[in-house]
Amino acid sequence: MTKKVSPLTDLQIASQATMKSIWTIAKEAGIPEEAVEPYGRFKAKIDVTKLAESSKDGKVVLVTAISPTPAGEGKSTVTVGLADALSKLGEKTMIALREPSLGPVMGMKGGATGGGYAQVLPMEEINLHFNGDIHAITTANNALSALIDNHLHHGNVLRIDPRRITWKRVLDMNDRALRNITIGLGGPTQGVPREDGFDITVASEVMAIFCLATSLQDLKERLARIVIGYTYDKEAVTVRDLGVQGALVLLLKEAFKPNLVQTIEGTPALIHGGPFANIAHGCNSLIATNTARKLADIVVTEAGFGADLGAEKFMNIKARQGGFSPDAVVIVATVRALKMHGGVPKNQLAEENVQAVTDGLVNLAKHIDTIRAFGVQPVVALNKFITDTGAELEVIFEWCEENEIRVALTDVWERGGDGGIALAQEVLKLLDEPNNFAPLYDVEQPVSDKITAIVQKVYGGLGVVFTEQALKDLKNIENNGWGILPICMAKTQYSFSDDPKILGRPEGFTITVRKIIPKLGAGFLVCLTGDIMTMPGLPKTPAALQMDIDLQGNAVGLM
Amino acid sequence: MTKKVSPLTDLQIASQATMKSIWTIAKEAGIPEEAVEPYGRFKAKIDVTKLAESSKDGKVVLVTAISPTPAGEGKSTVTVGLADALSKLGEKTMIALREPSLGPVMGMKGGATGGGYAQVLPMEEINLHFNGDIHAITTANNALSALIDNHLHHGNVLRIDPRRITWKRVLDMNDRALRNITIGLGGPTQGVPREDGFDITVASEVMAIFCLATSLQDLKERLARIVIGYTYDKEAVTVRDLGVQGALVLLLKEAFKPNLVQTIEGTPALIHGGPFANIAHGCNSLIATNTARKLADIVVTEAGFGADLGAEKFMNIKARQGGFSPDAVVIVATVRALKMHGGVPKNQLAEENVQAVTDGLVNLAKHIDTIRAFGVQPVVALNKFITDTGAELEVIFEWCEENEIRVALTDVWERGGDGGIALAQEVLKLLDEPNNFAPLYDVEQPVSDKITAIVQKVYGGLGVVFTEQALKDLKNIENNGWGILPICMAKTQYSFSDDPKILGRPEGFTITVRKIIPKLGAGFLVCLTGDIMTMPGLPKTPAALQMDIDLQGNAVGLM
Repeated sequence: MTKKVSPLTDLQIASQATMKSIWTIAKEAGIPEEAVEPYGRFKAKIDVTKLAESSKDGKVVLVTAISPTPAGEGKSTVTVGLADALSKLGEKTMIALREPSLGPVMGMKGGATGGGYAQVLPMEEINLHFNGDIHAITTANNALSALIDNHLHHGNVLRIDPRRITWKRVLDMNDRALRNITIGLGGPTQGVPREDGFDITVASEVMAIFCLATSLQDLKERLARIVIGYTYDKEAVTVRDLGVQGALVLLLKEAFKPNLVQTIEGTPALIHGGPFANIAHGCNSLIATNTARKLADIVVTEAGFGADLGAEKFMNIKARQGGFSPDAVVIVATVRALKMHGGVPKNQLAEENVQAVTDGLVNLAKHIDTIRAFGVQPVVALNKFITDTGAELEVIFEWCEENEIRVALTDVWERGGDGGIALAQEVLKLLDEPNNFAPLYDVEQPVSDKITAIVQKVYGGLGVVFTEQALKDLKNIENNGWGILPICMAKTQYSFSDDPKILGRPEGFTITVRKIIPKLGAGFLVCLTGDIMTMPGLPKTPAALQMDIDLQGNAVGLM
Repeated sequence: MTKKVSPLTDLQIASQATMKSIWTIAKEAGIPEEAVEPYGRFKAKIDVTKLAESSKDGKVVLVTAISPTPAGEGKSTVTVGLADALSKLGEKTMIALREPSLGPVMGMKGGATGGGYAQVLPMEEINLHFNGDIHAITTANNALSALIDNHLHHGNVLRIDPRRITWKRVLDMNDRALRNITIGLGGPTQGVPREDGFDITVASEVMAIFCLATSLQDLKERLARIVIGYTYDKEAVTVRDLGVQGALVLLLKEAFKPNLVQTIEGTPALIHGGPFANIAHGCNSLIATNTARKLADIVVTEAGFGADLGAEKFMNIKARQGGFSPDAVVIVATVRALKMHGGVPKNQLAEENVQAVTDGLVNLAKHIDTIRAFGVQPVVALNKFITDTGAELEVIFEWCEENEIRVALTDVWERGGDGGIALAQEVLKLLDEPNNFAPLYDVEQPVSDKITAIVQKVYGGLGVVFTEQALKDLKNIENNGWGILPICMAKTQYSFSDDPKILGRPEGFTITVRKIIPKLGAGFLVCLTGDIMTMPGLPKTPAALQMDIDLQGNAVGLM
């Protein structure tokens, strides 16, 4: 969410907006009534099986960013504002976004519905529980955990080794105390003692599966393929062995329908699925993107954090699995983040510092190179903040001109779609050009080559170092024939390297992979690097402390 | 859920039913359009602040049961069938029911939407996630846990003793391995190590609070009063001390709106809140009951398990706090359960055994006495099963006549409202009679006297025995001035005693209270008796193994 100096908070702006009925939004988007399942007056689930056949395949505009500051650079805000601008220019446009996790909402970063006059609505309900999808995913994940422990308790016919269960429980919460736990304590009637841990739901394989499945039957098949651990003979145990894929898909059935909402300016948006991009693959559901492509000529979508994370996975995992090409990429940059990469401490980002902006451009340059390496052309969206000075902006524009980089200033926080017209025009130009999209590696390559390709071509590093554990994991993966899957890197969003403190455009570094987790259902191999955590913690003063209701029962203090 | 021999399952019958639009149901129930928030076509949340002022206070019919078999005696089924029958007789009737927990749905007992032709619809969605209320309650509960552990981690200004934190995490799941756990392991960056455990969400104080609060502001105040544990100086620490009641109520805001659905025959039903009656207070939300009373002349509602549990708490906790009198009580009995209380093993309940039925009537007799002790008149609903024989039914009717007990045979599973007409007529007679409802104890009495009153007057036992731990708890409660709260007994549903194996009408027993937990937000003291667990386990062959979707994406195998 973009923080600007404004007399109104995002929540206040959202509350004052006049929404159209969700029936009107659906109609305008070409969704027939029978496919609309309203959730209140301004949200709906879409039964995609009831959509008319369409030969349309709308173009895909991916919004990504430079390596971000902790507050984010306003990627969702630009996504919304760009779509509103494209709509204003007469393009049939739809948004595909991720659903917010409650972890950051209660913690530090706030919600994920855009900001200012570029928001999806109803902001408050989307940020809190939305239509229950993430809760359904949490439930399916934890039902599987309960069924595994119940299997151990009732005789363990499959001979699952409790020390080798890799399936973890999840909560949609920042809760560090649940990272490492022991369960099943208290004697023979209380289960089988073992080590376990909770991840945040958005890092779970169920979430990844949910976001990559193309139909309910595909969802079920993927769930069946999940490896939950190993037997005493070190044979993989799957959900199919436990026979519970039917129960899991049943728990996910309603959640799997994409959610329709609207922007403040009335552009339709599908918001569905929400894996983080640092610890998971970072894109909204494929079914939402595919549905939007059937309905609109242009789909504006977002991948989480910087282009080294969300965009890389969007290209190498989602677009590859979905069989489509991203037609244009928007890289969101801010003066603040550039200054940070230029060496300015976080508490001085509001002060003018032209040299630091100049120095920080190396970070942007690397992300541009990355996108071009995929055969796709980028445009830089310079997302305006109230503290930006003319000299700071100028140095960026000059640099872009020198380097033949498309760039547009966006002011969608303050002005909605009007503030995104320049960007929209640049995007439309890009969409008229051919692109030569190709993933950066072949899935047939050896696992270490695939990881090395990402490290070298996307992060700009020398190569990869595997820990003892990672080498063991690699051997297990190869022995089981799982080496042909693509890679899902789990890496800090703050740096190209695996050290969050190394900003800018580092060189000469290696990435240490400490663990590789095969996710057979999702269809990728997760590589944990550095000290990235799959369960975040809350800050000392969490956002929750500011939250409340007023006397009329309206939300207060949501960011 | 009632199990009958039928060519169709409950799910099949539910799927074949034709539902009215929820807008029609709302209109017929007298709910104005602006108060209706549709969730799909056949469910809605009701914004009670938008209902017209009404001086109406509909009469309350409470459906309870004898001590049940593990499958249940069809209390929800009779509740639905009775309401349908009352509607057929021209009475403006509304149902108030609890929402099903996923624990029993995935485990053994199945859903909680009635059965056969006496069901609330859409059966499948109500049983799976419904409108997300229980997930919101789980989230609020666990957000509080995360905030407590975060407080410990970041300096522990309140000096909370990690060994004396009484607040537990919850999941809406049967998961015995989570009963006793250790958390915060892994070193200084991973939280503070301590013992913890998960309860099932329906046993949580947040659920109890949700079901007893009269408004959003009351909900917030109650959340603020929750005691989460004690400091190193043994002073109570509350949610207000942590300052997070605002965040918690915000997480519960939408869930707090009652959910409107319909029966197969089109009777409106509010389904809202779902505490179990053995480990919690066992009644749907007060706000749903109050709302139904404003809309209808007769509200048929249910309290969980036998009258010793749900009905006792309905009378002593909910009706007392809500300031209303139950106007009539229906006690559901089955030939099967009577035979079980007469000594027949579970696998022989289908065989005729008139003597066992006669012997089992002592259980029913005690429940009748209990209801009368509250100053309310009961009617017995003999819920027909296909295996019942004429001789078995006859002996029950004779006994009722001899003892001047109102009784009606119900066949609502097979025949819907038509099968409940006789019962409805008996209920209407009762509603014309005056009642002298009064709780069975004064809150001002000493805690041990209040517990003793329940043991003697409701269970028919001699008295209460406290363990060392319970005596310590009692002393703490008295020292803090919390002794004036009513009692919420946690006891097995299978026996009047605290031993699930002692069926019929035991005498001369004592009840052992092993722990007393003050729930300041809910406003009661939970007494744990016997080996009752606040987190159930799954059976060896859980219901989840039968669940699936068919090729069209429809639910299969839901009970």
